[in-house]
Amino acid sequence: MPTLEDIRKAAQELEGRIHRTPVLTSSALDERFGAELVLKAELFQKTGSFKVRGLLTKLLRLSPEERTRGVITVSAGNAAGALAWAARNAGVPATVVMAKTAVPAKVDAARGYGATVELVEGDLMAQYEQIRDGRQLTGVHPFDDEDVITGHGSLGLELLADRPDLDTVLVPVGGGGLISGVATAVKLLKPEIRVIGIEPEQADVVSRSLAAGSPQKLPSARSIADGLAAPVCGTRNLPLIQQYVDEVVRVSEAALLEATRLVMSRTKLALEPAAAAPFAAMLEGSVQAAGVTAAVVSGGNLDVSKLLL
Amino acid sequence: MPTLEDIRKAAQELEGRIHRTPVLTSSALDERFGAELVLKAELFQKTGSFKVRGLLTKLLRLSPEERTRGVITVSAGNAAGALAWAARNAGVPATVVMAKTAVPAKVDAARGYGATVELVEGDLMAQYEQIRDGRQLTGVHPFDDEDVITGHGSLGLELLADRPDLDTVLVPVGGGGLISGVATAVKLLKPEIRVIGIEPEQADVVSRSLAAGSPQKLPSARSIADGLAAPVCGTRNLPLIQQYVDEVVRVSEAALLEATRLVMSRTKLALEPAAAAPFAAMLEGSVQAAGVTAAVVSGGNLDVSKLLL
Repeated sequence: MPTLEDIRKAAQELEGRIHRTPVLTSSALDERFGAELVLKAELFQKTGSFKVRGLLTKLLRLSPEERTRGVITVSAGNAAGALAWAARNAGVPATVVMAKTAVPAKVDAARGYGATVELVEGDLMAQYEQIRDGRQLTGVHPFDDEDVITGHGSLGLELLADRPDLDTVLVPVGGGGLISGVATAVKLLKPEIRVIGIEPEQADVVSRSLAAGSPQKLPSARSIADGLAAPVCGTRNLPLIQQYVDEVVRVSEAALLEATRLVMSRTKLALEPAAAAPFAAMLEGSVQAAGVTAAVVSGGNLDVSKLLL
Repeated sequence: MPTLEDIRKAAQELEGRIHRTPVLTSSALDERFGAELVLKAELFQKTGSFKVRGLLTKLLRLSPEERTRGVITVSAGNAAGALAWAARNAGVPATVVMAKTAVPAKVDAARGYGATVELVEGDLMAQYEQIRDGRQLTGVHPFDDEDVITGHGSLGLELLADRPDLDTVLVPVGGGGLISGVATAVKLLKPEIRVIGIEPEQADVVSRSLAAGSPQKLPSARSIADGLAAPVCGTRNLPLIQQYVDEVVRVSEAALLEATRLVMSRTKLALEPAAAAPFAAMLEGSVQAAGVTAAVVSGGNLDVSKLLL
């Protein structure tokens, strides 16, 4: 399990390579939700999502031999561009396995950063493993990896450095990568802060894994919050979530859509639905904001081809 | 015609009442357009557009009697919320005349700030005048007004204070309000800076007025950039545009749509199509960015009900 020292070291390695994203406030949202909200604007991160934190941390720690052979990952979307960007930043060749149904803008982003993209149908993980072994590439799991988790923890350090007065942190949940890192950092620094995860009802693998006490797998996971539609919960993430996360709640597709529109209209941030999950939970009342509440606005990789049709 | 002193006085009156919006940069857009771009992020302004600058300036200069009777304006959209907000800020009752086809979010915004909204069909200006005279309200024209123009000039002062190295300023054009103020401020401070206006082909009343040498009127003006769809060019705006603006170019609807999506995907700013006009012109090649080029991202009042359908 990552220590505070591990996370601080990762944050130092990332410094100057990625953005230190701002925390923003919105009086309109504060009024709407009756709390003092702090938006961690991670949509302004390199590649438009938090994922570069963990992935670049991972790549910077590879052996020279692994770097030469190259890396491969599998992604619902955001991790594709993030791995491609991080690989270019670290000087490592990258291959990305994506579903044929992935948002075209996310496929283009990965290719734009110089990655080889393999679009596949069916069981993503099985095909990822096949390509990885066939080409002798080093697999980089987008969330079930200790270095990735450690790198994501850097977001928690920044949040507490900027707002030491936080009472609650709300984190969108897919396979558990972001929240396991952020919760570890936050709780090791200040255990009295509440950390709450939010995942789509239609992609609730972490809630199911917590209930079962072991990592579960969904036959399928689809959500308007495509960045959260992970069908599996990470084996390295679940113990950290069990230890450090106070609660994981589910939100409906309707609330995700309403929250995306609400936050965009009030803040003028072009956030993606995954990033609106904390607000969706407040809309539905499954999370009661109280005191100073941080919402991690995790990404902004909207499919803009659907905008203004 | 406003002097630099007039504009500086307006800027002082506005200070603390409205936001000093940031200037942002984007390496992705710089690469795309081959220039050093500076985005004046006026979408983060109060009510989500630049309009509060001029309208609040106007209201702060009313006589006590005019303040008591109240004000009225007519608006394609953004000015409605802006007048309502400014009136509340200045403590003046406000009525807004809007087309029945106005974006619902913009109607709601005006009502939310406490204004009386009159939704009308047909000739907006005629009905505005009728209501104004019938209720003895003080008409506040959204752009054809010297105080409004002077207030908009404050944006030009901020731009040059933040980026004294500017070579070019690109400004979206509707009826000529914003550009007449900004161009006056910019040229009085630094005449060598190029100021270029951009308006929709389908709402090109300023281009036509420049060609004719007098303010023209369009039978109708509709554009995806609803904030620019003014059917008239202001009589007080045209002389300033003639004197201070180097060129006004037209952009297609397709370019406005493409530019909106491009800028949103690269910057994660939820800009409205009107605000994307400078980028549309660069996409079509009617404006060649060169050196340090400012684009006024004039507003972010997107119809979010059309998002992610």
